[in-house]
Amino acid sequence: MSSPSSVDQDRLFSRLVELAEIRETDCPGWTRRSFSDAYRRSRGWTAELMERAGLDVRTDPVGNLLGALPGSEPGLSQIVVGSHSDTVLGGGRFDGMVGVVGAVEVARVLQASGRPLRHPLLVADFLGEEPNRFGISCLGSRAVSGQLSQAHLGLRDQQGESLAEALSAFGSDPDRIQGSLWPSDRLLGYLELHVEQGARLERAGVPLGIVTAITGIHRAVVTFTGRPDHAGTVAMAERRDALAAAAEMVLAVERMARQTSGQDAGVGTVGRLELTPGVANVVAGWARGWVELRSPDASWLAGRRRSLEEEVVELAARRGVEAVVEWVSSESPVACHAGMRRLIAEAIRDLGVRSMEVPSAAGHDAAHLSRLCPVGMIFIPSRQGRSHCPEEWTEPGQVARGVEALLASVVALDQVSSL
Amino acid sequence: MSSPSSVDQDRLFSRLVELAEIRETDCPGWTRRSFSDAYRRSRGWTAELMERAGLDVRTDPVGNLLGALPGSEPGLSQIVVGSHSDTVLGGGRFDGMVGVVGAVEVARVLQASGRPLRHPLLVADFLGEEPNRFGISCLGSRAVSGQLSQAHLGLRDQQGESLAEALSAFGSDPDRIQGSLWPSDRLLGYLELHVEQGARLERAGVPLGIVTAITGIHRAVVTFTGRPDHAGTVAMAERRDALAAAAEMVLAVERMARQTSGQDAGVGTVGRLELTPGVANVVAGWARGWVELRSPDASWLAGRRRSLEEEVVELAARRGVEAVVEWVSSESPVACHAGMRRLIAEAIRDLGVRSMEVPSAAGHDAAHLSRLCPVGMIFIPSRQGRSHCPEEWTEPGQVARGVEALLASVVALDQVSSL
Repeated sequence: MSSPSSVDQDRLFSRLVELAEIRETDCPGWTRRSFSDAYRRSRGWTAELMERAGLDVRTDPVGNLLGALPGSEPGLSQIVVGSHSDTVLGGGRFDGMVGVVGAVEVARVLQASGRPLRHPLLVADFLGEEPNRFGISCLGSRAVSGQLSQAHLGLRDQQGESLAEALSAFGSDPDRIQGSLWPSDRLLGYLELHVEQGARLERAGVPLGIVTAITGIHRAVVTFTGRPDHAGTVAMAERRDALAAAAEMVLAVERMARQTSGQDAGVGTVGRLELTPGVANVVAGWARGWVELRSPDASWLAGRRRSLEEEVVELAARRGVEAVVEWVSSESPVACHAGMRRLIAEAIRDLGVRSMEVPSAAGHDAAHLSRLCPVGMIFIPSRQGRSHCPEEWTEPGQVARGVEALLASVVALDQVSSL
Repeated sequence: MSSPSSVDQDRLFSRLVELAEIRETDCPGWTRRSFSDAYRRSRGWTAELMERAGLDVRTDPVGNLLGALPGSEPGLSQIVVGSHSDTVLGGGRFDGMVGVVGAVEVARVLQASGRPLRHPLLVADFLGEEPNRFGISCLGSRAVSGQLSQAHLGLRDQQGESLAEALSAFGSDPDRIQGSLWPSDRLLGYLELHVEQGARLERAGVPLGIVTAITGIHRAVVTFTGRPDHAGTVAMAERRDALAAAAEMVLAVERMARQTSGQDAGVGTVGRLELTPGVANVVAGWARGWVELRSPDASWLAGRRRSLEEEVVELAARRGVEAVVEWVSSESPVACHAGMRRLIAEAIRDLGVRSMEVPSAAGHDAAHLSRLCPVGMIFIPSRQGRSHCPEEWTEPGQVARGVEALLASVVALDQVSSL
């Protein structure tokens, strides 16, 4: 049995399983999307977990759930640890959750140890990190870093509801978003524990990763307007088939992401495609595809973005359909802070555990926090690299090791006055 | 003003407009799909229209709405005229409806004329001609020709409801489908007036078409099962992207239909495509496409069908996804009866109106009726060949001319004892 002042593997894993069970039961896998009732309930559960760990809990105007622990030396800047607890549709039980439950466990162990940190500690469960029905990700971390704009708040979903309205209905106060902003001069650094969501750690047989950079993500919504026609009576040469145009784009995105000199230069995906009218015996008159380009290399992203626009213009003209490419978000790649990376590496080495440097091909709240303060991320392995699916899995021992590394890094960060 | 015993253009067009207004108001265009409440209401309207025309109205076990007019000579076989009154999602106001409203007008004129036909006349509004949510078309005409099988009745929609259940809920009696079967020895012939849904008549400037053959239609549902993956962390080479596979198939269908020596040899369409999970940041793990191949040439269909299967197997293997091609319907091309075509041509010539022979690239209830008796079809022009869309349009004078041709053909058919 572990002492109250050390990371408790079983307790930690039980908490993860409990949290995962608070889900949208009419959806596949472990689904708990932003603004859902399941998400609302889960945050009550997390608030209680924070309170039992001795944290002073509040929710800020945008809807971030925050738990504070005072430091022993007055006037010092804050150490922030956290992640998110929402999921994609049909997601898993680890993405985001290990960072939230792990951060609370770090606070609990620190409280139980009777040796408080010098700096105040803030545990953050950031609102809505996954892309939501308004097409925007990282709501909470955007807001605290001043990146949630009025334009974002005016975005509407397919039913015509605005993001501001959804936030209000969820209990947030979108009119007071400014009140969520964090003063960067009061922050020492941000640390986030997360599952890798790729297979590098597993392949290398290394239990911990120190993130070098967080991928840039450019997202476009591409809309093709052709002409709905009877699928029997209109000759092939006369058609303006919006689905065929979208299909060409799907393959163009795949091809341009594959044409990559170095490994892992970037990826391109069309994961969502919608048609009108979408019936078997009518040529599709309208199609919309959601395109994602991701790379830690800004020039790769810029090149592919240009290629996509050129190819869409070319294929649409050739097919007699109209096309509109709308870039809905353009997040630049973010390098993790070099001093923070060294600090984490030394803390992990002192635990006697092996680690390696890895890039992150997924976006994270840490990317937004990097506008405010030095950020560092610790990765734990994902079985077969699977993520955003029900099969997402990390062994209980691997999760515990990650939380131990997070705790050691927090303690190490507490020793410095700036990075 | 026209006499009660001649076709009344204004009256006819007013009826078409009235019928079109009975629609699913939450759907685009003029939508009145099988089993919808709007469809149920529209058939009450049509039954009343039939009654006012002096027809004896009943609904058969499958749900065909039938109006009978006795003949003057006992024991003669029946002349059937009709079409359908359901629409596709986002459809128009003419496809099917001109054949139903026109057939009732023919009966009304015959009644008002005081000169009854020798043969009994049956006006049929066949149930659900358009493909429905169970993936099957021509419910009513299949049933009367003995082609609605138990397997069809067991087909289920996405919510798990069976076709038999939907029929029961609509007021039909699927257990008594056998009671819908028509004895072919009691039928003299079937005549159907319909919009062309193509642009040949308009281009040629000819007001009436005599249909030579009705296209064959093969429909397949092709399902690709890949693997849902995080759209950032899984390298391009490791993906098993079901949407990319489906996109290749969409373009393969288009290509194989275009590779056609003669004009109008056939067409191929994917008009419906569904994804799971269908979110922007997840590689699609599952995709399903609905493929249609149409041609009046059976060998063209057989060749393309084989090509589709081969290409799907090849691309699925290359991409590491599983693929299942399921042929859900295979309707052979049907030639219209040569004697009936001559009879219609002469009747139209006697009206002093020009006509031309045209193939039908759309399927029709007539194709199923051809199993029972000689069938003939009369086409009227479709503006710009548009159909299955809100823009579908035929001029009131063109509709009236079509109904006059239908009436003249019925009268001519009434003079013969067999074809």
